[in-house]
Amino acid sequence: MGDIAIATVTGGITAPRGVRAAGVHCGIKRQALDLTLVASDRPASVAATCTTSQVAAAPILRSRRLLPVGRFAALVANSGNANACTGEAGLADAERMGQAAAAALGVPVEEVYVASTGVIGARLPMGKVEAGIREAASRLSPEGGREAAAAILTTDTRVKEAAREVRLPEGSFRVGGMAKGSGMIAPDMATMLAFVATDLSVPSPLLQGALKDAVGGTFNCITVDGETSTNDMVLAFANGRSGLPEALPASPVLSAFTQALGDLCGELARMIVADGEGVTKVVEVRVRGARSGAEARRLGLRIGNSPLVKTAFFGQDSNWGRIMAALGSAGVPVDPARIAIAVGDVPIVRGGIGLGAEAERAANERMRQPTFTVTVDLGLGSAECSIWTTDLTEAYVRINAAYRS
Amino acid sequence: MGDIAIATVTGGITAPRGVRAAGVHCGIKRQALDLTLVASDRPASVAATCTTSQVAAAPILRSRRLLPVGRFAALVANSGNANACTGEAGLADAERMGQAAAAALGVPVEEVYVASTGVIGARLPMGKVEAGIREAASRLSPEGGREAAAAILTTDTRVKEAAREVRLPEGSFRVGGMAKGSGMIAPDMATMLAFVATDLSVPSPLLQGALKDAVGGTFNCITVDGETSTNDMVLAFANGRSGLPEALPASPVLSAFTQALGDLCGELARMIVADGEGVTKVVEVRVRGARSGAEARRLGLRIGNSPLVKTAFFGQDSNWGRIMAALGSAGVPVDPARIAIAVGDVPIVRGGIGLGAEAERAANERMRQPTFTVTVDLGLGSAECSIWTTDLTEAYVRINAAYRS
Repeated sequence: MGDIAIATVTGGITAPRGVRAAGVHCGIKRQALDLTLVASDRPASVAATCTTSQVAAAPILRSRRLLPVGRFAALVANSGNANACTGEAGLADAERMGQAAAAALGVPVEEVYVASTGVIGARLPMGKVEAGIREAASRLSPEGGREAAAAILTTDTRVKEAAREVRLPEGSFRVGGMAKGSGMIAPDMATMLAFVATDLSVPSPLLQGALKDAVGGTFNCITVDGETSTNDMVLAFANGRSGLPEALPASPVLSAFTQALGDLCGELARMIVADGEGVTKVVEVRVRGARSGAEARRLGLRIGNSPLVKTAFFGQDSNWGRIMAALGSAGVPVDPARIAIAVGDVPIVRGGIGLGAEAERAANERMRQPTFTVTVDLGLGSAECSIWTTDLTEAYVRINAAYRS
Repeated sequence: MGDIAIATVTGGITAPRGVRAAGVHCGIKRQALDLTLVASDRPASVAATCTTSQVAAAPILRSRRLLPVGRFAALVANSGNANACTGEAGLADAERMGQAAAAALGVPVEEVYVASTGVIGARLPMGKVEAGIREAASRLSPEGGREAAAAILTTDTRVKEAAREVRLPEGSFRVGGMAKGSGMIAPDMATMLAFVATDLSVPSPLLQGALKDAVGGTFNCITVDGETSTNDMVLAFANGRSGLPEALPASPVLSAFTQALGDLCGELARMIVADGEGVTKVVEVRVRGARSGAEARRLGLRIGNSPLVKTAFFGQDSNWGRIMAALGSAGVPVDPARIAIAVGDVPIVRGGIGLGAEAERAANERMRQPTFTVTVDLGLGSAECSIWTTDLTEAYVRINAAYRS
């Protein structure tokens, strides 16, 4: 086996071969782009992870039904309306979106995936949506990735797309994607969506495995306010247009794909965290020395979701007492006397006890940066997990209290 | 058996007979009262529930050790310093506090309970604390309840005390208590403390049972920011000074005591919620139609801790989509199509679907009150639970980001 290199390349969902996309304004929102269509030139395999919410939106319910079929032709996604808490009528609307895209593209309806994000509890304006799908179908292009990425945004302030090229001796393949999520997980628009394409040929079960791995260490390790949306979805499809042979289980190619996918998802996930309105700090909470990765993750999320810790981040205060209190309340066994905490490379706690005012001042200095790392060593084992979180600011409250006018 | 009446009476921890208290300034804080002593005129039975935090403070560790002894003579509590994350030295300090009070009062040290609240990670100024204990012992009085209640406060803005008198044909007994907790659960002072005295004679195991019941439906059903402190403790003691016979298992007197205790704890708990800095709304989240009380409580806490729901309370917006999303993400099975939601007496959701703009406007009107109820009916069973929560305001963020100067 020769060398395998993973390079960052420009573009997003249309970076892989055989993927076309478009983003249009259909009229759900007053002005901005609000409808995305992504199509694969030939039938692709597909994998997805959906929200664990018991109150899943109509498009999520529909996607879960389609996934066992395992084939992907196109994706239609709208922003501005979540099609959630809309009952049977909402399910019918999601199906109609799939039918409209299937008709416009001449593909089977069970190969068309639907996603929605926006206000909960309102019906979609289906006439506008169907007209928008027809318009988007007529504008599909390999250059349409950026518009497509723009049309899934809600309160996001920036388009989020990224791509990788994996170079093998026998050729190359690409992985590209786009995401939305306002970081601050805004009002009725709490949703995190990500769509990833590859031109490698990956059978659905392997694609599902690779996606699960990638999501576990990336999208499932970011938190802004601990909320779970009715509409969260990460979907990946693989169309084989690179011409490389199908990825086999445990092959170096599959391993390179999995690595590139994780890398890509990590970049998109950090873009989501960084794009919260009001966010002034992006913080990596690294929990190590844990007995298991699951416990490390649970403790990291407890810290990353603690309002007291997050307001201390905002205040640039290395308030380790709040971190200790968060660690104590996660329902995970810890031994306070073994805990060490550092901000960046500045130790502030050793053996569960603070290292004094000078250490804290040095740590506060590190916290003036827009991004920093808080490392917690539990001293119990060798497992670890990194969580990406933000500060909690007055702007978050202002935005979320005032949003729905 | 004759009539039993429960009346609200003035006073707090010293309302029952045979209880004396004092609050003094010993110098942990710059100016305010910071040391409380409460003594029973004769040995009492005792019960307590302590924080579930894995990072429990020194006085908590000490109290857990004493509880099996089951006897109470006095309580010494300080504010301004939590004696948490202080290691072996902190444990020794807590023991010295107990010894100082035992010496000043001439009681066994294992009958003296210690509690602390305040900054995490700093050593107590033991010279000042011991002098304060001697001063407080010299000032103990049946009229000292209010000063004692003042000396346990940290960022609280109001003294929290309450009392009940239970009248039976054969005589009467009292239950009185005090609490601290800033509602917003402030910076390093996140602690909720409550101390309750009764002059009924109640054996420790029965007292523990009654306290557990009372705490479960009151202090464990309030939430401001979902944080659990290193120092949380609720302690009750019963000295029998009413002269009534000892309460027997399953007796009407024990039942009346349990009811009065729950009533008292409920009043103190609501005082804590209402006293958060920046709190503009106190909200009862009532979850009914649940399959079990535990599921109702879990869902209620999920709603009561959701930043999106809490900012909507602040914004006086009957944003039921956020409530539905919170219900979906609690890890408890729900059927969206059976969910009904009302604000006060205004239904806004039925069968999981919104009842329209007019209903929401009427609900928003209700939300302009400082206190209102949100009722969620799951339609799955007959269990229910009420959670008391607050809104999330810009002031919360400001206070918690700026606190430690």
